[in-house]
Amino acid sequence: MSTIENLIQLARLPNKAITANARHYATLSLFDWIICGRAGASEDLSNIIRKYVTEDAGRKSASVFGGKVKLPARAAALVNGTISHALDYDDTHFAHIGHTSVGIYSAALAVGEEVKAMASEVRDAYLLGAEAACRIGMVLGRGHYQQGFHQTATAGAFGATVAAGRLYGLNELQTRHALSLVATRASGLKSQFGTMGKPFNAGIAASNGVEAAALAKRGFTSCDDGVGGPQGFVETHAEVFDHESPWQHMPPKRFIFDDVQYKLHACCHGTHAMIEALRSAKNQHGFLTNDVQHITVITHPRWLKVCDIKHPRTGLEVKFSYVHLAAMVAHGIETSSEKIFRDDLCTDENLIALASRVKVSSDESFNDTTQSVLIKLSNGSEIHQRHDLYDKIPMAQLEESLRTKAKGLIGKVNAEKLWAVIAKIEQASAVELAKQLS
Amino acid sequence: MSTIENLIQLARLPNKAITANARHYATLSLFDWIICGRAGASEDLSNIIRKYVTEDAGRKSASVFGGKVKLPARAAALVNGTISHALDYDDTHFAHIGHTSVGIYSAALAVGEEVKAMASEVRDAYLLGAEAACRIGMVLGRGHYQQGFHQTATAGAFGATVAAGRLYGLNELQTRHALSLVATRASGLKSQFGTMGKPFNAGIAASNGVEAAALAKRGFTSCDDGVGGPQGFVETHAEVFDHESPWQHMPPKRFIFDDVQYKLHACCHGTHAMIEALRSAKNQHGFLTNDVQHITVITHPRWLKVCDIKHPRTGLEVKFSYVHLAAMVAHGIETSSEKIFRDDLCTDENLIALASRVKVSSDESFNDTTQSVLIKLSNGSEIHQRHDLYDKIPMAQLEESLRTKAKGLIGKVNAEKLWAVIAKIEQASAVELAKQLS
Repeated sequence: MSTIENLIQLARLPNKAITANARHYATLSLFDWIICGRAGASEDLSNIIRKYVTEDAGRKSASVFGGKVKLPARAAALVNGTISHALDYDDTHFAHIGHTSVGIYSAALAVGEEVKAMASEVRDAYLLGAEAACRIGMVLGRGHYQQGFHQTATAGAFGATVAAGRLYGLNELQTRHALSLVATRASGLKSQFGTMGKPFNAGIAASNGVEAAALAKRGFTSCDDGVGGPQGFVETHAEVFDHESPWQHMPPKRFIFDDVQYKLHACCHGTHAMIEALRSAKNQHGFLTNDVQHITVITHPRWLKVCDIKHPRTGLEVKFSYVHLAAMVAHGIETSSEKIFRDDLCTDENLIALASRVKVSSDESFNDTTQSVLIKLSNGSEIHQRHDLYDKIPMAQLEESLRTKAKGLIGKVNAEKLWAVIAKIEQASAVELAKQLS
Repeated sequence: MSTIENLIQLARLPNKAITANARHYATLSLFDWIICGRAGASEDLSNIIRKYVTEDAGRKSASVFGGKVKLPARAAALVNGTISHALDYDDTHFAHIGHTSVGIYSAALAVGEEVKAMASEVRDAYLLGAEAACRIGMVLGRGHYQQGFHQTATAGAFGATVAAGRLYGLNELQTRHALSLVATRASGLKSQFGTMGKPFNAGIAASNGVEAAALAKRGFTSCDDGVGGPQGFVETHAEVFDHESPWQHMPPKRFIFDDVQYKLHACCHGTHAMIEALRSAKNQHGFLTNDVQHITVITHPRWLKVCDIKHPRTGLEVKFSYVHLAAMVAHGIETSSEKIFRDDLCTDENLIALASRVKVSSDESFNDTTQSVLIKLSNGSEIHQRHDLYDKIPMAQLEESLRTKAKGLIGKVNAEKLWAVIAKIEQASAVELAKQLS
């Protein structure tokens, strides 16, 4: 039996299998536990944690996605972190391979709402938290991710702490204690991928950050350096780490966060560069689908195993089909909405006809984020377009793409209402901003 | 600068150092985060976590040490785990080097009170949780502890999950999901030792267990094996591990928990075997201190660097002084109470006189938990007594010692009142039991 099966067996052991002797010791442990707890109940640390948790319980200070009542900040951060990562459609940062918003905005907005900050202060706290998460993630390095840790959760918890701590107004020493405390609290494994546990990891990051910052604010202390010190988080969670280079070129000289990537299409990430290239080609040259003789897509060979389904049978399979997606984009179908990926795409004759004229080939020299398209038109002319996801999209175009994505996800009216609040973020309060969660 | 100092600098970056570009991206991320959260707000996992956390917030179901109001179960577990470990005077288990009660009783009683279980069910759930913690701790092994992980927190979280899950009545599949979920949540570092972070680690274990079990009960799922599977907790947190031998001789054949160790003296653990040996000698032979010519204490050499202060100047130093403690025990002074270790012990002439006749020597062949005393009386006779902390203390003597410890810690009246409830545990409800926390 495996370890988890043995644990399950223990958990479900019949009462009659418990020996009198073991019960007796457990009873003595109960007595011993209660006397230790009562004797320690007036220690400084006991007063701080009991007071914080008691005040926090039932406090209605922070909004949650889809919820009618407000919750305590830590609780709201857990809920929002999890919910906002449910679709896995949120922003990503490749510096540490993690999702920044889900863990860090969930912490920042919950605390911002509690302390009645301005929305712009929430945004700035998020930004510095995200910057911190990227950089501590770089300290932990690729090996940390390869070992099985989920940077969204682990590096994310440090980012959430930075954001929450800034909004709680922590002084320098409190910030140090908050970071050292979250070092003993941060967790999150990649083995949760593909399950509810993955979005939960983002909630973990957010709630850990709020808790650590709130405790430090109230005088809860920790070791001097739980992060990079002996037996700190870095040393215990990364075989190889780098405490130097990630801290070169600090803000304002350089914000690593600026390289954040938005998911603009509700399909496999391995198809996004192709979609962008094809959209650019169509925007620039305005060809008609009838004029397309054939399209050649070139991608790194690793993607051929992931998203090259030739004859998708379901909407889900379309998300992993270069040929079908190329046909959709050539037809001007918007790919940013989850809802578009219905099964009847697979039986659409126009799409099937064009998809049959799309050829996918691979090129070892391409990086993971680059794809190109070559469109041969019936008049003999050829259009060539290449896109790297790392290429900066002009800000106006990015805004437009996100607003289109929003319309697909939450409807036109809601999207425009939300955009209006975001556009006036410098004037809005966190409370006003938080009203947009539902 | 160290990584934590760089993080502190980032967290406290002046507003004016934030670039317009970075702010713009952070604003777009805010927009993107909200649309992702709103679009995902009705997913199954979103409904489960929002409903659980919302119902839990403000629920007054579980008592806390020294508190007047009841708290949600997860919150109470966090508070009680932390508080009961504040004095570091609670039980220990050497199978995995961890404290079992603080993490696991804190989870079990909080849930037991919430679901209105019997006190005996809380006790049995604790027992199986503690048994699970010891065994998963043995899977993780000594290396896990050496690497810097605090088994009280890490293995403890699995134990707390087993206990909470049993009281929530999880079925087999829910138990699996709870264990796999806590695998992505469990954390705790030894670098917190000597700070408020150490007791906090016990609170972490307790609250993680309650949360994982509560979510699994409501249908929140995880990967099939977050514990021993690929990139599960064991593989990511131990360089060497053993999924086989810790599971031999399962209950009812063998309860590893039976080897639990109680701290019976409020001084350094390295002096406890000496104290027990000297107490036994005094009980059996009833010598007077005036008749003592000299006492020789023999211990493993490692302890000489820890608790061999020859001339203690404070009550705290007495806790680390073989000679002074030997004099106290020979004088019949009870060492189970924190309060006895006052500075004036150091100036007590009778104690100083006897302490000057105590010699401490070391023997490499002794194990860590064994010490012996040789008492030479003025009539020429010699008393020799040896004690190993692993030796089973007869149950009646152990009870007596714990009741004495209780009197020292919470006063005679409280101690006897508590003992009366514990003695009738088979008849009591968890709610009645929980009244004893204050």
